[in-house]
Amino acid sequence: MKPSIPKGTRDFSPAEVAKRQYIIQKIKTNFEKFGFQPIETPSFENSETLMGKYGEEGDRLIFKILNSGNFFYDKKLKIELPESLDALRANSAETISTKELIELNKFTNRISEKALRYDLTVPFARYVVQHQNEIEFPFKRYQIQPVWRADRPQKGRFREFFQCDADVVGSISLWQEVELVQLYDSVFTDLGLTGVTIKINNRKILSGIAEVIGASDKLIDFTVALDKLDKIGEDGVKKEMMEKGISESAIKKVQPLFNFTGTITEKIEKLSALLSESIEGIKGVQELQFICDNVSSLGLSSSILDLDVTLARGLNYYTGAIFEVAPPPTVSMGSIGGGGRYDDLTGIFGLKNVSGVGISFGLDRIYLVIEELNLFPETVTSTSKAIFLNFGDQEAKYAMKAITDLRKSGLKVELYPDNVKIAKQFQYADKRGIPFVVIVGEEEMRNNQFSLKNLTSGEQQKVSFDELKKALI
Amino acid sequence: MKPSIPKGTRDFSPAEVAKRQYIIQKIKTNFEKFGFQPIETPSFENSETLMGKYGEEGDRLIFKILNSGNFFYDKKLKIELPESLDALRANSAETISTKELIELNKFTNRISEKALRYDLTVPFARYVVQHQNEIEFPFKRYQIQPVWRADRPQKGRFREFFQCDADVVGSISLWQEVELVQLYDSVFTDLGLTGVTIKINNRKILSGIAEVIGASDKLIDFTVALDKLDKIGEDGVKKEMMEKGISESAIKKVQPLFNFTGTITEKIEKLSALLSESIEGIKGVQELQFICDNVSSLGLSSSILDLDVTLARGLNYYTGAIFEVAPPPTVSMGSIGGGGRYDDLTGIFGLKNVSGVGISFGLDRIYLVIEELNLFPETVTSTSKAIFLNFGDQEAKYAMKAITDLRKSGLKVELYPDNVKIAKQFQYADKRGIPFVVIVGEEEMRNNQFSLKNLTSGEQQKVSFDELKKALI
Repeated sequence: MKPSIPKGTRDFSPAEVAKRQYIIQKIKTNFEKFGFQPIETPSFENSETLMGKYGEEGDRLIFKILNSGNFFYDKKLKIELPESLDALRANSAETISTKELIELNKFTNRISEKALRYDLTVPFARYVVQHQNEIEFPFKRYQIQPVWRADRPQKGRFREFFQCDADVVGSISLWQEVELVQLYDSVFTDLGLTGVTIKINNRKILSGIAEVIGASDKLIDFTVALDKLDKIGEDGVKKEMMEKGISESAIKKVQPLFNFTGTITEKIEKLSALLSESIEGIKGVQELQFICDNVSSLGLSSSILDLDVTLARGLNYYTGAIFEVAPPPTVSMGSIGGGGRYDDLTGIFGLKNVSGVGISFGLDRIYLVIEELNLFPETVTSTSKAIFLNFGDQEAKYAMKAITDLRKSGLKVELYPDNVKIAKQFQYADKRGIPFVVIVGEEEMRNNQFSLKNLTSGEQQKVSFDELKKALI
Repeated sequence: MKPSIPKGTRDFSPAEVAKRQYIIQKIKTNFEKFGFQPIETPSFENSETLMGKYGEEGDRLIFKILNSGNFFYDKKLKIELPESLDALRANSAETISTKELIELNKFTNRISEKALRYDLTVPFARYVVQHQNEIEFPFKRYQIQPVWRADRPQKGRFREFFQCDADVVGSISLWQEVELVQLYDSVFTDLGLTGVTIKINNRKILSGIAEVIGASDKLIDFTVALDKLDKIGEDGVKKEMMEKGISESAIKKVQPLFNFTGTITEKIEKLSALLSESIEGIKGVQELQFICDNVSSLGLSSSILDLDVTLARGLNYYTGAIFEVAPPPTVSMGSIGGGGRYDDLTGIFGLKNVSGVGISFGLDRIYLVIEELNLFPETVTSTSKAIFLNFGDQEAKYAMKAITDLRKSGLKVELYPDNVKIAKQFQYADKRGIPFVVIVGEEEMRNNQFSLKNLTSGEQQKVSFDELKKALI
């Protein structure tokens, strides 16, 4: 039997964990600088908490957990059976042979009542409602935990992956949108990832456009086509729109969107004119203006804010601002973050009129971008600073005294555990990427010294304990 | 519908997450100081990786995940069905109505091929075998991840909980046992938890005792009875041993164990004499002596090492040293850590002769002990240092400039997002436990100042930005 792991899952090596932790740490530090506090929710929720919250496709991608652990005695078979299995067997004739009872949900509900977390938003909404009396609103929480989806695995898409979310619930203040843009900028600046584009749009502007073109059901077709402007040109886009059933007169009305360039201020002016007859559209323009003006006057460190009217993610739930972050143009990669405002986050669990706004960081893609741009610092490693070679128990005892003291100073040092050939021990240090080797033989012990070898330069010198400590700090 | 979570699982509030992270961070830092490097494995493994590794009881406690995501067209019903359900239905007659096919394993294997991680040791063994060509041996890894068990939930026992493990594989050197004792001491010292007892024993000593009493199948009965010496006295223990079928002559042979007190050196001398005719027993005494001598000469910071011959955990897999950590005697709580050496960790996955030794920290219990002894530093919190009150957009804009600058210096500060009654904003700061409130009104803006109020002392003063920054650092 050759050991393997389920498709779509991953093992992470020490080097990979160190790099992932480096990114997570930067995100966490910034979440807390911006006043967000961590919560954690269970890996699995009651099925009814999750089912029906992600659409039909989402329901199918939820991993369900078999009932387990409850056994009782079966009189007929005279053996112990799991409750779940027995319940199934008791109804076997109908359950299995008739059409209506074979439906997946009815069946799996019998044998499964728990399911793995599919995202962090629904568990967060559940948390807020369940703990509403312990929480002070506005509640700013962050959550960095794995989620699971039974998606077909492909490059960059996994069945287990981390989400890193920051959300505020309980306030409709647009200052929060301003801060969330700053938060993106702060994290990516700290990661050395300069030149990301934080795209912003507003659901109300999209509604306004739909009003103007007189076809809200064609909104997605419209934005998808408009997004291709760079690739297929104005005529190509218009052709595609008409093929999708958008009328020529509607397209004429939004003509300014085909030359939608310039600064954010210029874009906002164009939108103002275009949407002047849509109350909702105007509201969206005002919201955008507040956010962009304030972000601009506070300044961003290394990111670019851009208004993108084709940004149309999460239309099923976002009601205000919509965010998406694109990596620097030198990297070919999809979005590395996204978010928005949803006016009724907790309504599904019975707590009405609680507005939420939040953003998410795509850990796996950020990792790939940072790797590609070679932005991981060399110091991102959990490897020991030095290894003491092992020449036998007397020498090891002398080494362990030094190691114990160095560790008390916080240094990462280790002893090669076995007294094997020195060449093998050196090879081990080299392959592990440990930068320093400390050699303790009879002579060193006699003189109360250590031979310190720098594996990068090849340089070797005899040092006292204090000198050794200084060299390794 | 009142939202809830599955039994045996937990939500963690910001305060709880901060405390848990504090403990985990201390453990991680020490793992790395001692040369261990992190790996991570998937939350679910192929069922065959886990099943049969934890005994019959363990198998029943493994959470199994329903197959999902693969659908195909059912000719008879003319609907799309999950593969798993259809496979079941196809065999419905036999599957459900006959005795032999109803067995749990056969049934669940049809519809489930994955299962949630039950511990970190088996996934680690799988990892080592799967990645043996990328790993340098000896391989020192640590792993801090959740595990899941379908145990009956009770006080302090959960269905989802974290394990924190450090193991070395690929070396039989006893220096590793020495270092693992030091590692326990170092972590608990860093946590301020002084006076823990690190109990040590050796499987070979237990085998020696079994040899001497001539009944290896009675070993557990023997140690369980012996462990009650304090409570029921020598006569009571002997009575219980005889009731369990241990002969009077056998009990006579191990008489020294009934007065097994004194220093470790004295205990080792007694064992030496007692086990002089058991080759394995003598080997165990020698191993213990090496470990205890070296731990003693290197010294422990705040823990006590003790030799406990009644320590008999993990007899199914431990082959050498056995460890268990007891909290300080002022706290009534079971063990807060345990571990040992297992000579054939990876054999189950086909890689023979790889010895491993490792220890584990019980996060939940350590949390309770530190809470009970009031050892969490007050600084363990993710709460903001200061909140700026909101008097309207002009004032908020002025505040946001300061906030943006303070965050760039790494400070945790926030803006109250809404312009609501000041009393409500103060109340919010208070309930959140934020120590400072910053007030920006017209006067402060005119004078380029901030009013800084310390909520603990009630003191309030007008300060410049630089003074504000200094006060909050």
